[in-house]
Amino acid sequence: MESVKNRVSIRKYSEKNISDELLTQLLEEAERTPTMGNLQLYSVVVTRSEEGKKKLSPLHFNQPMVMNAPVVLTFCADFRRTTQWCKYRKADPGYDNLLSFLNAASDTLLYVQNFCTLAEAEGLGTCYLGTTIYTSEAIIDTLGLPELVFPVATITLGFPAETPAQSDRLPIRAIMHNEMYTDYDEKAIDDLYALKEALPENKHFVVINAKETLAQIFTDIRYTRKDNEAISENLLRALKKQKFL
Amino acid sequence: MESVKNRVSIRKYSEKNISDELLTQLLEEAERTPTMGNLQLYSVVVTRSEEGKKKLSPLHFNQPMVMNAPVVLTFCADFRRTTQWCKYRKADPGYDNLLSFLNAASDTLLYVQNFCTLAEAEGLGTCYLGTTIYTSEAIIDTLGLPELVFPVATITLGFPAETPAQSDRLPIRAIMHNEMYTDYDEKAIDDLYALKEALPENKHFVVINAKETLAQIFTDIRYTRKDNEAISENLLRALKKQKFL
Repeated sequence: MESVKNRVSIRKYSEKNISDELLTQLLEEAERTPTMGNLQLYSVVVTRSEEGKKKLSPLHFNQPMVMNAPVVLTFCADFRRTTQWCKYRKADPGYDNLLSFLNAASDTLLYVQNFCTLAEAEGLGTCYLGTTIYTSEAIIDTLGLPELVFPVATITLGFPAETPAQSDRLPIRAIMHNEMYTDYDEKAIDDLYALKEALPENKHFVVINAKETLAQIFTDIRYTRKDNEAISENLLRALKKQKFL
Repeated sequence: MESVKNRVSIRKYSEKNISDELLTQLLEEAERTPTMGNLQLYSVVVTRSEEGKKKLSPLHFNQPMVMNAPVVLTFCADFRRTTQWCKYRKADPGYDNLLSFLNAASDTLLYVQNFCTLAEAEGLGTCYLGTTIYTSEAIIDTLGLPELVFPVATITLGFPAETPAQSDRLPIRAIMHNEMYTDYDEKAIDDLYALKEALPENKHFVVINAKETLAQIFTDIRYTRKDNEAISENLLRALKKQKFL
């Protein structure tokens, strides 16, 4: 499990290609991930072509990994296959609702993480693109996703051409709660975020952005209320379009 | 990665306890999971007490794993900690919306799967309880989850006292799409589900439930439209209560 413990995001990839055999093998091995009722409520769209990557790139805000990686994988919550199975088997499916979306999204995200773990153990590098649900409507159109299929995660994949350092993490006491949830008061926040806030790169980041605190980088620049609320509206519209709402 | 490839759900656990040291170590190692903006939008509530398990058991439809396992872990999408950090740092958080819920749920589910991988490599067994989002309102009350915290996955954890066989999976060609999504017609469904439908245990299951097809087991008994729609309403109410909608 050393590759899990040493894991870093890889954003620069070597020229070395990934064979279809290796990619298929890893996606197949990842099928061992736990899944609701053994329905496997996910699909993955493999993008290797320059043309396909060029279409996806702006939907991921032109992050360079999309064009640079030999393989881009879009993982989709998928109740379409199961619904088609039901329709061809005299069964009346009822999976056009929010619960079914969340069940399928859960199946998919567990599968994504297991796939990444297996790929990284083979020496591959991955980068998780959080932009997928930001531009879900355009991704749906680009990949031709039918109703009851929704993109929830994109991974760029390739052999690493960089060896970045690991980023910081919160102390485990920030995450764990014993029997009941313990809320975070000012003293707890001071304790838990002290290390993160003291890192030279974070201090530098605050200075060059002319902010007063690191938290303001997130609220004012990276993940603003205005953007979050606009994208939430897009998400609702996309979920309705795909018949999950 | 043999433990990933050989993975099975474990529902019966030995008397052997899990030390706090081992549990903390595994949860800490899992913090290497990729996370949005390095915000780590998750928390985990550890339930070890008989009293705590007795409260959770009915919320998981009295599945015996809850009382039988030495440890029950409820993983929560958590924007509360980040929001508290912002509030104490003169930053104006805007994470009370659907996008933020899905971002936090994604972070959480990736973390859950990495935790399970690490635990299983240490010889522990896990079972994923899909019931968590079915009874989210009651779990929120039971564990004292504040606004912007939402339970998305529960895992029972212990040393295995059984060695079940692996269940079937769909052929990988059922999951993979090349460049564009290829929809499933009747011929594809016949091909992809042939193995699953031919399994003696599945044929038996159809007979004893007096059904005509395996798909009807899912639509008429396990995951019915009526239940899915009722639970979707509960979910919407719980998401509103936790201020994600």
